[in-house]
Amino acid sequence: MRTSEEYVEKLRGMRKNVYMNGELVERDCPELMPSIRVLSKTLDLVDHPEFKDLITATSHLTGNTINRFTHVNRSVEDLRKKQKMIRKTCHLTGGCIQRCMGCDAINALSFATYEIDKAYGTEYHPRFSKYLEYFQKDDLMAAAAQTDVKGDRSLRPHEQKDPDLYVHVVERDEDGIVVRGAKNHITMAATADELVCLPTRAMKEEDADYAVAFAVPADSEDVKLITHVANPRPRKVFKAPISEFGFADSFVVFDDLFVPWERVFMCGEWPFAALLAHGFALFHRHSYTGCKPAITDIVTGASTLVSEYQGILGKTHVRSKLAHLASVAELVYAAGIASAVEGEKHESGTFVPNTVYANVGRRHAGLNIYHEYEILTDLAGGLPSTLPFEGDFVNPDTKEHLEKYIMRKEGVSSEKIQLCFRLLSDMLCSSLSGVSAVAGVHGGGSPIMEEIIIAATYDFEEKKKIAKYLAGIKEE
Amino acid sequence: MRTSEEYVEKLRGMRKNVYMNGELVERDCPELMPSIRVLSKTLDLVDHPEFKDLITATSHLTGNTINRFTHVNRSVEDLRKKQKMIRKTCHLTGGCIQRCMGCDAINALSFATYEIDKAYGTEYHPRFSKYLEYFQKDDLMAAAAQTDVKGDRSLRPHEQKDPDLYVHVVERDEDGIVVRGAKNHITMAATADELVCLPTRAMKEEDADYAVAFAVPADSEDVKLITHVANPRPRKVFKAPISEFGFADSFVVFDDLFVPWERVFMCGEWPFAALLAHGFALFHRHSYTGCKPAITDIVTGASTLVSEYQGILGKTHVRSKLAHLASVAELVYAAGIASAVEGEKHESGTFVPNTVYANVGRRHAGLNIYHEYEILTDLAGGLPSTLPFEGDFVNPDTKEHLEKYIMRKEGVSSEKIQLCFRLLSDMLCSSLSGVSAVAGVHGGGSPIMEEIIIAATYDFEEKKKIAKYLAGIKEE
Amino acid sequence: MRTSEEYVEKLRGMRKNVYMNGELVERDCPELMPSIRVLSKTLDLVDHPEFKDLITATSHLTGNTINRFTHVNRSVEDLRKKQKMIRKTCHLTGGCIQRCMGCDAINALSFATYEIDKAYGTEYHPRFSKYLEYFQKDDLMAAAAQTDVKGDRSLRPHEQKDPDLYVHVVERDEDGIVVRGAKNHITMAATADELVCLPTRAMKEEDADYAVAFAVPADSEDVKLITHVANPRPRKVFKAPISEFGFADSFVVFDDLFVPWERVFMCGEWPFAALLAHGFALFHRHSYTGCKPAITDIVTGASTLVSEYQGILGKTHVRSKLAHLASVAELVYAAGIASAVEGEKHESGTFVPNTVYANVGRRHAGLNIYHEYEILTDLAGGLPSTLPFEGDFVNPDTKEHLEKYIMRKEGVSSEKIQLCFRLLSDMLCSSLSGVSAVAGVHGGGSPIMEEIIIAATYDFEEKKKIAKYLAGIKEE
Amino acid sequence: MRTSEEYVEKLRGMRKNVYMNGELVERDCPELMPSIRVLSKTLDLVDHPEFKDLITATSHLTGNTINRFTHVNRSVEDLRKKQKMIRKTCHLTGGCIQRCMGCDAINALSFATYEIDKAYGTEYHPRFSKYLEYFQKDDLMAAAAQTDVKGDRSLRPHEQKDPDLYVHVVERDEDGIVVRGAKNHITMAATADELVCLPTRAMKEEDADYAVAFAVPADSEDVKLITHVANPRPRKVFKAPISEFGFADSFVVFDDLFVPWERVFMCGEWPFAALLAHGFALFHRHSYTGCKPAITDIVTGASTLVSEYQGILGKTHVRSKLAHLASVAELVYAAGIASAVEGEKHESGTFVPNTVYANVGRRHAGLNIYHEYEILTDLAGGLPSTLPFEGDFVNPDTKEHLEKYIMRKEGVSSEKIQLCFRLLSDMLCSSLSGVSAVAGVHGGGSPIMEEIIIAATYDFEEKKKIAKYLAGIKEE
Repeated sequence: MRTSEEYVEKLRGMRKNVYMNGELVERDCPELMPSIRVLSKTLDLVDHPEFKDLITATSHLTGNTINRFTHVNRSVEDLRKKQKMIRKTCHLTGGCIQRCMGCDAINALSFATYEIDKAYGTEYHPRFSKYLEYFQKDDLMAAAAQTDVKGDRSLRPHEQKDPDLYVHVVERDEDGIVVRGAKNHITMAATADELVCLPTRAMKEEDADYAVAFAVPADSEDVKLITHVANPRPRKVFKAPISEFGFADSFVVFDDLFVPWERVFMCGEWPFAALLAHGFALFHRHSYTGCKPAITDIVTGASTLVSEYQGILGKTHVRSKLAHLASVAELVYAAGIASAVEGEKHESGTFVPNTVYANVGRRHAGLNIYHEYEILTDLAGGLPSTLPFEGDFVNPDTKEHLEKYIMRKEGVSSEKIQLCFRLLSDMLCSSLSGVSAVAGVHGGGSPIMEEIIIAATYDFEEKKKIAKYLAGIKEE
Repeated sequence: MRTSEEYVEKLRGMRKNVYMNGELVERDCPELMPSIRVLSKTLDLVDHPEFKDLITATSHLTGNTINRFTHVNRSVEDLRKKQKMIRKTCHLTGGCIQRCMGCDAINALSFATYEIDKAYGTEYHPRFSKYLEYFQKDDLMAAAAQTDVKGDRSLRPHEQKDPDLYVHVVERDEDGIVVRGAKNHITMAATADELVCLPTRAMKEEDADYAVAFAVPADSEDVKLITHVANPRPRKVFKAPISEFGFADSFVVFDDLFVPWERVFMCGEWPFAALLAHGFALFHRHSYTGCKPAITDIVTGASTLVSEYQGILGKTHVRSKLAHLASVAELVYAAGIASAVEGEKHESGTFVPNTVYANVGRRHAGLNIYHEYEILTDLAGGLPSTLPFEGDFVNPDTKEHLEKYIMRKEGVSSEKIQLCFRLLSDMLCSSLSGVSAVAGVHGGGSPIMEEIIIAATYDFEEKKKIAKYLAGIKEE
Repeated sequence: MRTSEEYVEKLRGMRKNVYMNGELVERDCPELMPSIRVLSKTLDLVDHPEFKDLITATSHLTGNTINRFTHVNRSVEDLRKKQKMIRKTCHLTGGCIQRCMGCDAINALSFATYEIDKAYGTEYHPRFSKYLEYFQKDDLMAAAAQTDVKGDRSLRPHEQKDPDLYVHVVERDEDGIVVRGAKNHITMAATADELVCLPTRAMKEEDADYAVAFAVPADSEDVKLITHVANPRPRKVFKAPISEFGFADSFVVFDDLFVPWERVFMCGEWPFAALLAHGFALFHRHSYTGCKPAITDIVTGASTLVSEYQGILGKTHVRSKLAHLASVAELVYAAGIASAVEGEKHESGTFVPNTVYANVGRRHAGLNIYHEYEILTDLAGGLPSTLPFEGDFVNPDTKEHLEKYIMRKEGVSSEKIQLCFRLLSDMLCSSLSGVSAVAGVHGGGSPIMEEIIIAATYDFEEKKKIAKYLAGIKEE
Repeated sequence: MRTSEEYVEKLRGMRKNVYMNGELVERDCPELMPSIRVLSKTLDLVDHPEFKDLITATSHLTGNTINRFTHVNRSVEDLRKKQKMIRKTCHLTGGCIQRCMGCDAINALSFATYEIDKAYGTEYHPRFSKYLEYFQKDDLMAAAAQTDVKGDRSLRPHEQKDPDLYVHVVERDEDGIVVRGAKNHITMAATADELVCLPTRAMKEEDADYAVAFAVPADSEDVKLITHVANPRPRKVFKAPISEFGFADSFVVFDDLFVPWERVFMCGEWPFAALLAHGFALFHRHSYTGCKPAITDIVTGASTLVSEYQGILGKTHVRSKLAHLASVAELVYAAGIASAVEGEKHESGTFVPNTVYANVGRRHAGLNIYHEYEILTDLAGGLPSTLPFEGDFVNPDTKEHLEKYIMRKEGVSSEKIQLCFRLLSDMLCSSLSGVSAVAGVHGGGSPIMEEIIIAATYDFEEKKKIAKYLAGIKEE
């Protein structure tokens, strides 16, 4: 498997197509390093004794040992290990491990291509399997490019005034297809090897050209990655892991991009756009039952720590708030467990998580994230927002004053207190904290998206029958 | 296994010790029949094709087929079947199936007696196993009598002004022990074969006499069952299952009750009071991950039905509320699944559910029950509270007016609408509905009790370590 | 002014048109007495030193001292006194004082008739003033009959398959009009002198026949009052005010009712249906800023009392919950104060409360009622749902046991504890408690109705301008 | 009155004692300008036709026209104008207007000094009045320095291991006193003329030296202002008011500061520490009923704007969320109105707001702020967190792509959409947004502080009496 050095080395050699604040930048520029460090963790941990069993898997294609982030799930156990791996790796990076999205995309393609072939006699599935073998062998990282820019939210793709507001096929010949459009909010596009492009929603017949899925190298000709980074505040003196890791999201422009057929996995089979879009969402929401508990774990840990330092850990209201945080994490995690345990093996061999549990779990996480930060704020008091800057803890004119006056519970050093509140300041009062909160609501589909899926797939008829039976209403 | 006819026959033959509103009543009096009907379901369904596999089990003591409500769980599968059995039977009785409490009590005794014996060289476990064999063979129903009356909530048992405010041993000789005190809120005590008495909390050395557990026939000399029933409104014309089932809770007085040693399962081993008390709570909370989703299912079904009849089923806000109800049910149920899957086999052979998941599940249910009723109220409008009485739907002077003016969505008959709202009226505006809501909060331990267990058992230290690592705080 | 004896005497003499559970009943039958007792309070208190100033007013028509429940508000002070009067009288009846609805109806008519006359040159306003003089002189009580049965909720009045699903004019001649239809959930119709009928919503031209308002004696020929009562549980031994007062709501059928012109206040002027419907809702929601805090006061008082008896009054979480209850009451009350202070004098002389504040106040109350009961349940524990019946506290076989074992905090007698929990049982676990909760959500318009009014009337444009200014977006 | 130019000129002349990130900085350095711009608004608006009447008042000492921010409230009208002035000025600065804290401090001193004099025969009140005259004449700005650093939260001031963890008097002679300690989170200390120091809590006799209040110039010898700024992201291209204004909070160190007697307003009169501490909190919470609705107004405006641009303004769930935001703003504002209307004139002539209403209002704001941001996030989608940087909207390689693909509702230009989302990004995903959220919870006292005041001052006894009356429990 790949080392993180090889990964960064490859990034350095890629074609320059990352734009940031008006500049065309290198992939290993300082602004992208925090994101690269996150992804590198997924490579570095393969030999770590605690992670080895979680982070590697056996390819069903080759029997080789591969990185689990490139693996197609084949069993309950696979899904449970994936969930646990994500929770544990997110602890180390202080948030989103990012690489799961590509993994979820290949899982969705692994069974959706099979279904398309069954219906249309196409050959997407074997084509995809060949791509997957390459993907696993080279231990690649993919950004899943799903969310279209969507223009007017009340119109379908083909109804938009500008037909390019959803990605679509504009030409096709014997060698391949040409696509145009843009995908939005694409995490890790600027630090990925590959872009895996999927439809964003169900399509109707008139939208057939929008039912398109493919994979391309991230530095392909006619791809532009206009990139926003959300990085932690730089630390000069009081270094800490929290300030090493960050996000990079791109506005991905496909400016008449050519894709050869061997990398095309859906092209016009509009009745299956929903299966692929929802299939990706399903795997991704199952992944969220791993990462969201991790984020809650971090909030819980920070809440516990600051309560201890403030001397209020034993108070009833503090214990109740900590128990609430634990409940959020474990309910979401339990939903992921249930989703795996109640999942089903698809004919293609892919093991698919249960829809209802994956969705109620993701929804619960999304509904609670702001409140979790609120609890941390509540327990921390105002200092995260007014903590003096690093320099003042070094300047001899102010250092002693601050060290004297920041003291709280006896026995806890002023340095620990300062580091604790600096962590809280990063978690609550930085641009990265705002981005995390927004991602907590919208990443992987907002609660309202899960409600739509639940409303569409839950067996309300069965519940209605129970009510009718109890009411004495006869079914006709 | 027993038939419900045999069960009722036995009740008729028991010693009269049930008091109700100033009278000494028969166990099969009309006020107790709704509760008897609930329990009878657990006997009647053993041959039902849909329930047979769920509601029977194989005794680990005898290898015989027994009712699962008398079974000690031995595997993940056992716990999962118990959970599912409870959810499905509650659908049929419109609420609490009641019999799980005795089952949870024997499960707790099955491993707690083992631990006491290990520590003290006592013989509680073989004694209990003998009792269990009898219990399974006769297909008995037990009320678990745990909650003491507790007097001043800020004092421990031995500190109370009146030492009887917790049940305790007042005499012991070679034949057995004499106990005094009262247990409160004891569901189905008046319709049970047996009372299984357990300590209500952790005890200290001075409380040793309060660390007592035993089983007695419910009609024992010196036991009085002062009983409150919460029954549905009687229906004269528009009969429906909802009005067939009810609750009976007793204030159980042990007025210097003699218990022979073969029915004593703890007597003075105060360090194990917590294990037994919390062990029962743990199994019972796992049971709640079955019954609480059932109650939510009924609320969901009624909400769906009334929304359909009102013609608002497709509205965004309605779908969102239904999705919320589904989420509550399935998150609680998922917690039960995770609790089973992450459970552990105790040395005694009993399979014990995971504590954290059982508690976060029960807590989530308890925190949501009032809001669930609120949603149903919201969707139903005011009619559940003002629906004319049955007689007015029969009286020729008013019948036609009501049938004309109650009409809603075209194609739904006035009778269906009336039956639907009569169900809602029972669910929202009857004394039984109030009792159900209170039981939803407090039955099996209020959310605050779960928070205490979570605060005491959750691994907050691990989360704190994550926070310290991210903050750059070195562990010493 | 009238005495309560005169009021009951009059009820006895009225034509029998009250139907209850299949019977034609007398207005002073036992089932209606709890409701009559509520209304009688509004008569009995006029000489009470503490209430006199609140409950009387000076008629702007005659200068006579009248009952404030028959008064048209002329000033901020009037609205503030009305609000306070309602809060204080509801304390005495343990809930809704009922008589405000008629008062709110005449206030709405007092300015809406003026506006209709201005637009159409009609004479509704002087006609109404004459009726009002009679209404004040005889100290009458009116039920406001507004809510139509409405049939299919997605259709307007004239679109319904059955045109009678909203009350409408079916004939008109020189003497008066004939109306047909039914009004639903009409509180106190069976114990009122008069029915004041108002349109339930805005109307379009095709609905003109549905734009009708009038007043008739409650026992008019061709009116049927099909009545549902929600009364407290009868007490035989432990009498208490909580069990003296109840509700009676009627399904009011207008079976081709003739109304003479002098009692018709709108007939076909459809553009003003909204003004009258919303005008009544506005005054009524302002009244709710008096009664809802009263109900919260009662919940707060009961919560404080039971916490004291349980010995937990000083606990942090208890204080926090009590503070929350106080906050709900006082925010709603503050909204009523603001609604009065920011109200406006209408050209007709009527002082109209501010719309936004009345609506945000009523909405806040409606959103909190279930949670208030949940808090009381939380603090009370399970006993409200399992408290033994009265008889068992009298029966010598059980009396002493119960008195011994119900004891809690030292120094509080068992009788007090029992009475306290009997109150809680009535408040939480009776059919009346369910009706109160439903009324708390829907009475006077559900939160969703207030949201509709807020969405329609709040100055979102002004807020949008602030956002545009801050964003640097130029207004064109 | 002062101009903003005069104000900045004076800042330039002050002694350098502001430390920031290790440097001793000028008061008009770029980092402090956003805060200075906020305060300047309070000077610039005195001649603005829309603000003139709100922002000026008549001094009760001199009869001169003064800035209302230096005025002691004398009437309901004064309090209502103050509330409105704060709401309207905060709109212009996109958040906290900052100057109210000094105003609230002088209001608290105006009546607390009077009470101390009455009890002790001291001369604080005339001394304070003289200071106030100077304060009003020179149109000064004061930071209220109240919050001590507090050390171990479970110990009182004199119990701390380090006696300096609360500000206290260490010496006193005929000329004045010497104080030592530090105050924390002191907004605008670095841009104020004066620091007004107040005790942070109630004191006991042993804490007498901590019962101290005084005013000093902000650049006094032996005062150090270690300052944290929270400024908006700099904009290079797309300038907007939102990015002009910011916060500066200081850690204020009193390093054996000498204060002459004429500036000392409490010194050792420990029984009155609570009156002064709570008096300031009371006036300040009343001010929050002005500023918090303003912040909600901005969130409401941004929510309305983005919903319009997304084309979802008419959706039910959007209208419901907007109505919720309006309800939060107006309930808090209503509480402020009620607090003024139900306020009382103190013997000193100061008009004091009602405690209960000020506290329930501030609490409601504090409990809602995170949820308000959550609503905005919900309506906005993910773009606030991933919006490309300014430069990419200018760079010819990317400009057209972004302008094409950011389009939403037809008719809204890409520039408007970009400016709207840039505002949202600043409001949701900047360090300033985190600081605002924390300030929304803790500024002026966290919800838990209001609960403590409500629990201590609300008339729960009266509510308990109502419950006892309804329960039939006789008062002894």
